[in-house]
Amino acid sequence: MKVQKLTPEAFAEFGDVITTEGAHSFPINDGTTERFHDLAQIDVADGQGKPLVSLFRGRPRQLPLEVLTMERHPLGSQAFVPLSRNPYLVLVAPRGEFDPQALRAFLVEAGLGVNYAKGVWHHALIALYQVSDFIVIDRGGPGLNCEEVRLVEPVIIREKDLAIIG
Amino acid sequence: MKVQKLTPEAFAEFGDVITTEGAHSFPINDGTTERFHDLAQIDVADGQGKPLVSLFRGRPRQLPLEVLTMERHPLGSQAFVPLSRNPYLVLVAPRGEFDPQALRAFLVEAGLGVNYAKGVWHHALIALYQVSDFIVIDRGGPGLNCEEVRLVEPVIIREKDLAIIG
Repeated sequence: MKVQKLTPEAFAEFGDVITTEGAHSFPINDGTTERFHDLAQIDVADGQGKPLVSLFRGRPRQLPLEVLTMERHPLGSQAFVPLSRNPYLVLVAPRGEFDPQALRAFLVEAGLGVNYAKGVWHHALIALYQVSDFIVIDRGGPGLNCEEVRLVEPVIIREKDLAIIG
Repeated sequence: MKVQKLTPEAFAEFGDVITTEGAHSFPINDGTTERFHDLAQIDVADGQGKPLVSLFRGRPRQLPLEVLTMERHPLGSQAFVPLSRNPYLVLVAPRGEFDPQALRAFLVEAGLGVNYAKGVWHHALIALYQVSDFIVIDRGGPGLNCEEVRLVEPVIIREKDLAIIG
């Protein structure tokens, strides 16, 4: 399927791109530190939820990749900040009833993070080429916070689909 | 002053060391990802607070470093996860009235993060040798969340104090 380059504009419907580029920033600590401020809408406080900081270590997926399921977290956002400089792949679909026609795939350049807004359909972590670590900020607390949907017609991502970034 | 190697045990009084080592982990995403779960006690929800994800870009400090002030955040924890592989320096003192005798300095090995518990006195970010980026998770919202104290007698950190790690 078609893979796009990740940009904040293209991803806005699904959540945030976590990047210093274009971010509001200001000096702190007597000018020794620049603070790029509030880069993602962390949305985990529903009265019972609390923010969790975890580390996901993703093994690289083999291509072609058959996309069989998508998931969503109805109770909170989920942010991924890469610790490795490897690109990775993100698949999303809008909130609400899952619409396979609305599926979008983004190739994420090294260094950018993504934050899935609450309820946005997304694929589980798709690391590429190497084992990749991510800091993940999501919701802990009571309640069922993961729903899955199975695609009637699997979608295939091929190596050549990733050729959009040099 | 004396600088110690950072370990979870030595730092426990002040907050968390963010590391996969010894962390509870389990496989997710059909075994393609390992989740090192809930690595820091993020404490920002006081009814009005919300978690902020920011990026701090710290310029390296020159040594010897004269420590003149310490700060604390009475309304929330503050976590630092390094994106660079550079060591950095952490100075802390226990909660409550500031006690200069209780000041502790830790050299943080590449890759480890720290989370200052709410109200723990700490020094502003001390990057070493190179410009260093950190993902910071702290509290946003109303209220005064930064207090400073000025040391009556400045403390000096010298290059030779950092020689504890080879």
